[in-house]
Order: sequence, then structure tokens, then C-alpha cells
Amino acid sequence: MASPVGNALIGQSGGPTCVINQSLVGIVEAARGRAEVRNVYGAVHGIKGVLEERLIDLGRESAETLEAVALTPAAALRSVRKKPTREECEKALAVFQAHDIRFFFYIGGNDSAETAHLLNELAVAKKYDLRLFHVPKTIDNDLRVTDHCPGYGSAARFVACATAGDNLDNRSLPGIKVNIIMGRNAGWLTAASVLAKKYEDDGPHLVYVPERAFSLDAFVADVDRVYKALGRCVVSVSEGVHTADGKPLLDSKEVDSHGNAQLSGSGALGDHLANVLKARLGEKLRVRADTYGYLQRCFAGVFSEVDAAEAREVGRVAMREALGGERAHGSIAIKRVGAGKDYAVRYEVTELKNVAKETRPLDDAYIAGSNGIAPSFFDYGLPLLGKLPTLRRLSDFAVAKKLGSS
Amino acid sequence: MASPVGNALIGQSGGPTCVINQSLVGIVEAARGRAEVRNVYGAVHGIKGVLEERLIDLGRESAETLEAVALTPAAALRSVRKKPTREECEKALAVFQAHDIRFFFYIGGNDSAETAHLLNELAVAKKYDLRLFHVPKTIDNDLRVTDHCPGYGSAARFVACATAGDNLDNRSLPGIKVNIIMGRNAGWLTAASVLAKKYEDDGPHLVYVPERAFSLDAFVADVDRVYKALGRCVVSVSEGVHTADGKPLLDSKEVDSHGNAQLSGSGALGDHLANVLKARLGEKLRVRADTYGYLQRCFAGVFSEVDAAEAREVGRVAMREALGGERAHGSIAIKRVGAGKDYAVRYEVTELKNVAKETRPLDDAYIAGSNGIAPSFFDYGLPLLGKLPTLRRLSDFAVAKKLGSS
Repeated sequence: MASPVGNALIGQSGGPTCVINQSLVGIVEAARGRAEVRNVYGAVHGIKGVLEERLIDLGRESAETLEAVALTPAAALRSVRKKPTREECEKALAVFQAHDIRFFFYIGGNDSAETAHLLNELAVAKKYDLRLFHVPKTIDNDLRVTDHCPGYGSAARFVACATAGDNLDNRSLPGIKVNIIMGRNAGWLTAASVLAKKYEDDGPHLVYVPERAFSLDAFVADVDRVYKALGRCVVSVSEGVHTADGKPLLDSKEVDSHGNAQLSGSGALGDHLANVLKARLGEKLRVRADTYGYLQRCFAGVFSEVDAAEAREVGRVAMREALGGERAHGSIAIKRVGAGKDYAVRYEVTELKNVAKETRPLDDAYIAGSNGIAPSFFDYGLPLLGKLPTLRRLSDFAVAKKLGSS
Repeated sequence: MASPVGNALIGQSGGPTCVINQSLVGIVEAARGRAEVRNVYGAVHGIKGVLEERLIDLGRESAETLEAVALTPAAALRSVRKKPTREECEKALAVFQAHDIRFFFYIGGNDSAETAHLLNELAVAKKYDLRLFHVPKTIDNDLRVTDHCPGYGSAARFVACATAGDNLDNRSLPGIKVNIIMGRNAGWLTAASVLAKKYEDDGPHLVYVPERAFSLDAFVADVDRVYKALGRCVVSVSEGVHTADGKPLLDSKEVDSHGNAQLSGSGALGDHLANVLKARLGEKLRVRADTYGYLQRCFAGVFSEVDAAEAREVGRVAMREALGGERAHGSIAIKRVGAGKDYAVRYEVTELKNVAKETRPLDDAYIAGSNGIAPSFFDYGLPLLGKLPTLRRLSDFAVAKKLGSS
């Protein structure tokens, strides 16, 4: 199956990450010197930019600009949350034809893979010769097939470092601290909050993921138990937790076109949990809540080197696959082929439908009981975060009392 | 005035920072090889540890442990928020006598300086030979006399990087974004949110500090104007903003023993502002709020090298002053002696009463109108943050439309 000759187009979609531009630059890079690719364009705001014909020429960017953009968080092409209708898919294909787009790359998560899949189905039905690849990206780490998702390692690093610092803050000024972490459907990012733990009694002491039913009564009892034992308690709660009947703890009015409710961008869940703890355990307790919010996905300067390198490579692989001629479409997946110090990955292609729409929950084996993360998760997660900061306590050599104060 | 001979004691107090342990280690370091200092102790949880005789021996810590602790955020000795009563000051002095403490160092902000001042007044009145120094520390940057406070540069770096990343996120997925930043009385940290701006239309587009009266009507009108002009709007709001009659926007029930109301650890202010914006500008607008919360003071791995070095040095200077014999007590202040590339500082001693209790607001010259930060603030702030991440946009070379889509 010979590769077509024409222009390439790249779009970025969904929530941005710290390394999503690495994938963009990887695609551009891998097209260099390839006669099949005449120009590499970018669609501004993803599928929305396609429909509006808002295209920019990435081939005219200098290598220096591209390298600097690769290190810059958030979608350089700008992003969108939009599921195209059938009519819009037809319009998009008309734009492809008008600009002789023969290679299309959509960098995004499961919703973006769904958009890519819809476009691809139409292109196939219409016999429009198109190479179409979904390039995985999501801090949620909830794509199927792939071992992990570009973007996750950097966000996980943020969450691990934020929680480790917060644990030390809480040790300095003890109390109960609730941290709300992103992840609508899956607890991957919330689980990452344990990854910089060093000492036995370090927080987070309790971790609640959406894969387990959340009970307010059990939550209050758990916190009470830890607080009584340690004099402090740091808790990680996924924004996506819900009760046994599947209801979220708080209702959200906003829903996007993929049917996702707004969870981030509000401190309501954290404040609610803090208020419940005070009401039930005592108004005088020092209870605080933070919602990590958008900081965890685009913080400038905090990223995982491993994640950045892999995000670049999935972009390169996507372009190489598009040009290779073996498959006309698919999604790039990462396979882990070595563990620990020998951590290594290789790249595969899976069908678009395997990644579109549905998400992958945090593996059951990584969840310990109703409120914890299993030790095996460290083996999974740590290689993805890069070298973490060194954190050390004093030895606390006690000085004998002279006054017998207590 | 000859220096006494005896033991040294160090306490850490108030909100922790990413570099507060640099000061701790600086004090220990400067005591090495000095015959006047027999042992260096630490008080666990500041004045509370003194009163309970919870002392630890810092002289037995290895240099390697101390260096690792210096790089670890939050108070290694653990902290406290407590203003001692007259009786408690007498008890503290009794503990000093029992342990032959002749050098006392209290690392903290204005409230901690007040505690140090109270202890010192009593020691002087009782003619107890004591060298007592306050070592400045606060992310709020609101101490008087000193040009800036150790801890501020690192927290300001966090706020600048968080806001720069969030601005890019907001550019990817446009909407209105409100970020709540720490600073009970002073806008220094909120002002720092502008420091990583690069392009003309980068956010934050509006900045509200507690030094200016906050009007909800003006706020809504400001946001509406920016949103209409740019299609997006990023806003920095200090947690300490209040109306013209001095009332906070939201009431807080919790007050500490220094009389400070709880502002952090809740997303209420951000959520309130987001709700007001939606109610007045349109329920369909994408409005989000994040509260940077505790992450901005103890995030593991994000600190300013300049800040870390200065925090170390104020500790060393405090011990040297205590041993130098010129002054029996005081607070270390930083004076700036060079600007821009020639940024440099020297250290001075000021009287405890000059730093105790009262705070220093953001300089009037750094505030532009009711909702902005003046360009001169970049000259003040940038040297304190260390090298910031490089952020770059694509050039956006437009591709000519073929279908005339709009």
C-alpha cells in the first residue's frame, strides 16, 4: 500500500499537557526530507480550526522555534473540546480535499480519538485516500491499550511533588488536609500522589479513587482514625469519586459535547469534604482543602524528562507509520518492555476504535482496599516521573529534659 | 560587649516555605568551630517546643543530612502559630536557663518577630544574658525594613510559573479564569503572577491586590472588557482583597492567636467570584477558578536558587551577629545594592520592634490603577525568582483559505 503524496495536517484536542507540543514537534520532525509530505500544516483549535479553515504553516517555523515550543506547556496549536457531527465530518473532509491533506494527526485523549475515528470512518466510506493517526495525550492516563499516556508522567510528577511538599507542610503545622486531584473517570493521577512518599508516616495517608465507591461515613471514620494515630492526616481524593449508586458527591451543571461534566475549576468538592470533617469531627480542628486544579496539567517548568522524550517519540512514530504504508490509520500505543532501572518502551499501532470513547480505569491490582494504593503501583509509576527531588528529615536526636516539662 | 558562652537554640515559626531550612542550616553552619557555642539545639514546633522542652540536638546531624534537609521544603523543626503570653515567656526563659541557652534564633515572619521581641524584652528586663535574633522568612514578602524576604522568591517563582502555564492553558481552551493567590495583607505574591509574562496579550490580564479597594462591579466590568477584546481573560486575585470599607469579600470564622483570619485552605473566594461572573456575564461562559493554596509555599522541587542562597546567608549572618558582640538582639534585613544583571545584596541588622507585628504592603509604585501591576515591579521581582522557563508560541504563518470558510 503506497503512501499518498500531499500535505499533512496536525490538530491538538482536549485538555492540554506539559508535553503535548513535544508530540507536535515530533510529527513535524519526522516529515522532514520526506517527498511524500509537501507541507505540514497545523489546525488552530483542532477540529474547530479544520471546519473554519484556520490552518497555519508549520513548515515555515525554524528548528529553534520548534524546539522552544516543544518545551512550552499547553497546546501551541490551541485546543478544543468538540465532537463533530456527521455534517461537520463531511465539511472537514471537504477542507482536507481543498488543501490536499493526505496525512492527518490528531493529538488527544479518548474523546479526540473518537473524533479521529469518526473522521476516518467517513474518509474510508468516501474512499478518500488519507493516512489518519491518533497520537495519545492525556494527563488522566485513561486510554486503553497503551501502557501509559504521554502527558501523564509530567502531571503525575506535579501531583507527587505537590503532595510531598504538602505532606511536609502538614507535618510542620499539623491538621487534616484534603487535596482534590484531577481524573474524571480514572484514579491514575490521584494514585500518583503517593509516589514521592519516603518515610513510613508520610502522607498521603488515605487515597480515594473513582474506581471504588466513596462513602462519606467511611471517609470520616478513616480520617478520624489516622488523625488520632498520627496527630495529622493528608488525604488525596479524586475529583471523580462517587457513591455506590454512581452519583457524584456534588452535582455539576456544565456538560461538554462529549457528555463530560465539569469537575475542575471549582473548589466545591474539597470545601464540601472539609466542612463535613469539621461538622463531624469538631469545628476546632484545623481542616484545610486544596484543589490542584489546572496547575497540574500545564505548570511551566515542571515536567518529566521521560514523559517529554516519549511524547516526542509518539509523534515521530505516528508520522513514520503514516509514511510506512503498512496501515492507513490507527492510534500509537506504548508498550513497556523493561522494569525498574531497565525501564524501556517500544511503540505499536492499535486500531482507532480500540482507543476511542471508552476509558481505562486504574488497574484493580494497584488499589489497596477502599482507601489506599498498592506497593506495586510504585513499580508502575516511578519510572514515568523522572528523578524526584530528595526530601530529608532531621534525625531528631532528643535532648534530655531538665525541667520535666510535658 | 563580649559574647556569652553556652548553647544555641533555633526555632521555626509561622507558615513554612521552600527555603526555610536553608536558614536553619545556615545558622548551624556558622556556629561550627566556635567555642562560644557548646551545642546547637532545635525546638520542635517553635515556641511550643520551647515551652514543652521538646529540644533536639542539631550538632549531631551529619553535614550530608543537613545539606539534604536544606533542600527540603517546610520546617524541618516543624512550626507553630502561637503568640506566647507573659507567663509563657517566663516559662520559656526558665527553659533557656535550664539548658543554658545563650543564643536564640527564631526563623519566621512578622508574628514570629513579635514572639521574639516579647521574649527578648523579658530577657533584657530580667538581665538574662541572651543573644536573640529573628531570621526573616515569609512567602508574603510583607516584613518591614528588608528589601525582600527569604521564601518570597521561591513562592513568587511558583506563582509566576503556575500563572504562565495557566495562561497557556487558557489560550488553548479559552474562557475566563480566576486564580486566587496567597497574601493576607499584602499583594507581593499576587503581583508576582505577572513575572513570567512574555507576549503582549499574555495573562494575567487583571491583577487585584489587597492594597486597592475591591469592587465586585468594577471587577465584572473589567473582566467583561478584557474578554470582549481577547476572547479570554486570566485574572489574579489576592486572597486578601476587601471592599472599600475594609470588609473581606467572604467571612471567615477561624482566627489564630495573632488575630489572623483563615483565608487559605478553601476554594470559596474563587468559586464565589466565578459564580458572580457567570451570573452577570452569562451562564454559558466557560468560567473556572483555581486557588493556588498551600502548593505555593512548599511545592517539592520548585524553588529559586537566588532565594535559597539568600535564605542560607541570613541564617549565617544571624549566628555571626550573635557571636560578633556588637548587638545582643535584632532581625536580619536584606539590602539590595545592585539592579538587573548586577543584582546583589548585603545584610544588615535592624531592631526587633521594627519588624515585629506590623506588615509592609506592596509598594504603591508597583501598583497600576485598580487592576494592574506597574512595569517597575519586573525590575524589583525578576532577580529574586532565578531563571524562568522559556515559553514560546508558534509564529502562526497563515495558510490561505480555499473554501472561504469563516
